[in-house]
Amino acid sequence: MYTPAVIINYEIMMRNLKEIQDLCNERGVKLRPHFKAHKTPYFADIQRQLGAIGFTTAKLAEAELLVNEGFRDILIAYPIVTLENVKRLKEISKKTKVSTIIDSLEGARVLSQGFGNQSLDVLIKIDTGLNRCGIKPNSNEVLNFVKDILKLKNLKIKGLLTHGGHSYKGKNIEEIKEIAEAEGKTLLELKEFLESKGIIIDEISVGSTPTLRYLLEIPKITEVRPGNYIFNDYTQVSLNTTTIENCALTVRSTVISRGIGKFIIDAGSKTLGLDKGTHGSEIIKGFGKILEYPDAEITALSEEHGIVKSSILPEIGEKITIIPNHSCVVMNLAPFVYLEKEGKFLLLENKGRGLNY
Amino acid sequence: MYTPAVIINYEIMMRNLKEIQDLCNERGVKLRPHFKAHKTPYFADIQRQLGAIGFTTAKLAEAELLVNEGFRDILIAYPIVTLENVKRLKEISKKTKVSTIIDSLEGARVLSQGFGNQSLDVLIKIDTGLNRCGIKPNSNEVLNFVKDILKLKNLKIKGLLTHGGHSYKGKNIEEIKEIAEAEGKTLLELKEFLESKGIIIDEISVGSTPTLRYLLEIPKITEVRPGNYIFNDYTQVSLNTTTIENCALTVRSTVISRGIGKFIIDAGSKTLGLDKGTHGSEIIKGFGKILEYPDAEITALSEEHGIVKSSILPEIGEKITIIPNHSCVVMNLAPFVYLEKEGKFLLLENKGRGLNY
Repeated sequence: MYTPAVIINYEIMMRNLKEIQDLCNERGVKLRPHFKAHKTPYFADIQRQLGAIGFTTAKLAEAELLVNEGFRDILIAYPIVTLENVKRLKEISKKTKVSTIIDSLEGARVLSQGFGNQSLDVLIKIDTGLNRCGIKPNSNEVLNFVKDILKLKNLKIKGLLTHGGHSYKGKNIEEIKEIAEAEGKTLLELKEFLESKGIIIDEISVGSTPTLRYLLEIPKITEVRPGNYIFNDYTQVSLNTTTIENCALTVRSTVISRGIGKFIIDAGSKTLGLDKGTHGSEIIKGFGKILEYPDAEITALSEEHGIVKSSILPEIGEKITIIPNHSCVVMNLAPFVYLEKEGKFLLLENKGRGLNY
Repeated sequence: MYTPAVIINYEIMMRNLKEIQDLCNERGVKLRPHFKAHKTPYFADIQRQLGAIGFTTAKLAEAELLVNEGFRDILIAYPIVTLENVKRLKEISKKTKVSTIIDSLEGARVLSQGFGNQSLDVLIKIDTGLNRCGIKPNSNEVLNFVKDILKLKNLKIKGLLTHGGHSYKGKNIEEIKEIAEAEGKTLLELKEFLESKGIIIDEISVGSTPTLRYLLEIPKITEVRPGNYIFNDYTQVSLNTTTIENCALTVRSTVISRGIGKFIIDAGSKTLGLDKGTHGSEIIKGFGKILEYPDAEITALSEEHGIVKSSILPEIGEKITIIPNHSCVVMNLAPFVYLEKEGKFLLLENKGRGLNY
């Protein structure tokens, strides 16, 4: 094994996956994991076997990979707003059930035009506070938008969808819990309002790994779409939504040089990414946690070097283990990963990395 | 062409490459471009045809790709400190001339041991201020280190090497020029000192794109190793070492959503990277420059979304052009790029992305 190397601990990963699937089963909520967290059909297959009802993707290229690998029922939770992309969606729809989200009339019109005589399931994307995509949850605004969509005969409104990604900026568990409750409450109030106007809303689809457990306590949520829960990372640990013991993905790295009060490792930004949180939040000091040197701090990353400030210096050539800040970006950077299972290392190609179009 | 897409303008790239090759030829300095900037044999081949005498890499995996693609004379400008990596270097040495750097006796001993009866060219890595790898340029310290290396009979000291990467933190051209001059002067003084002790130093290898032009004005520099100069990027523009017109790499992106005073694009951190400079410097506001909306600012990146603050809002579906902050990381993220040549777009696979081990 050459370093830097991305290692997935099978046992921890399975524990993470089963825990969330079991929770979903208990609550009668569908689990539709976000593929972007691992981008690897091998892991998607495990999720499917455990009970995932389908997959979420951001980009069409991810959905194309999944469908070509035999996966079914794909939600592209991303605005598809150009005719060339609607054609790709239509192509996918020949092989499996698909759905997507809308948050603009312009986008919806392009979808409707591209699908012609064929109908398409869509979810209305609501912005519950991340302040990225989505319609603001003003009842009348949403109603007017929905009425406009209903005029586009081939778009079938399947439900409401949100992503409470602002939970990644939560200062403590209480704040994250509040964000989760607001996320659920906002969608359920909108559902009630729309249904009072005769518009049936079947699906209430929510999800982010930090808010997941709290969302599952809210009745009438029908679907969750976490991604990161498969591996976790130092962002989740910093948010207190999990502990180090539940981090399934680590980066093995080698000490290549030393100086006064510092050492240099062979993992840089091209391996670890520069994330200090998620969605642009900067909640973490340093660029990952070194398990063997818990007091050390990875203070800077060049492309291929990590600079570590530390009072204790390891030997040159020594191997260290890093919990990265954001496991999703580490997966996207790695050409392959090592699956650590029963003391053996299995090399897994990372088929979906870079499929960001 | 689906977005986000990385586009290389052939004409600008050729102008950049020729300008630096011509400058090197005029000064009689060898040009050994850093492969990490593009990681694509297609571009390396152009550099070779124009006169590059060989290539620089950071990681062995990059060198392995180059050698397998028929490139010769590779400098792995990275400390190789483990026996498993020395074996890889030895394997490469069967096919071509190789050299590497040393900055620790521990590392040098592993190299020497691994090479056995075979000799290996090494350059002493000097830290001229980046404060990453390298021996501090204290004459007696360097002399003692060199004496220890000479005892390892199979390591042949070819010269001194540095990377003035701290120039990326330069506040203006004057500071960058000073860093370049110090970079050259430090190595040349060490050379003179070592030669006064009977140790011949043939090679003085320096290089970073910002300091390049100033380094080439210093006599007795024998080799430069720039990488970024092939494409440039918004970091170089911000440092005033080039202008927008010389940026050969752009990212084409689509507007997917709009809000009050903002719009959302389909290029996120998995396309643009989170760099706000190089080597951990944060000299730039925002995550790339949008050519069509020069007053807009990309204020945050999620994995697949860019959030742009702007008083003027483009249409949903509109295409925009981004000069990324750091073109080297954009290349490492892209599975393929489009070469724009005489009005046509040629798809080029990016063979070396992810080869960071």
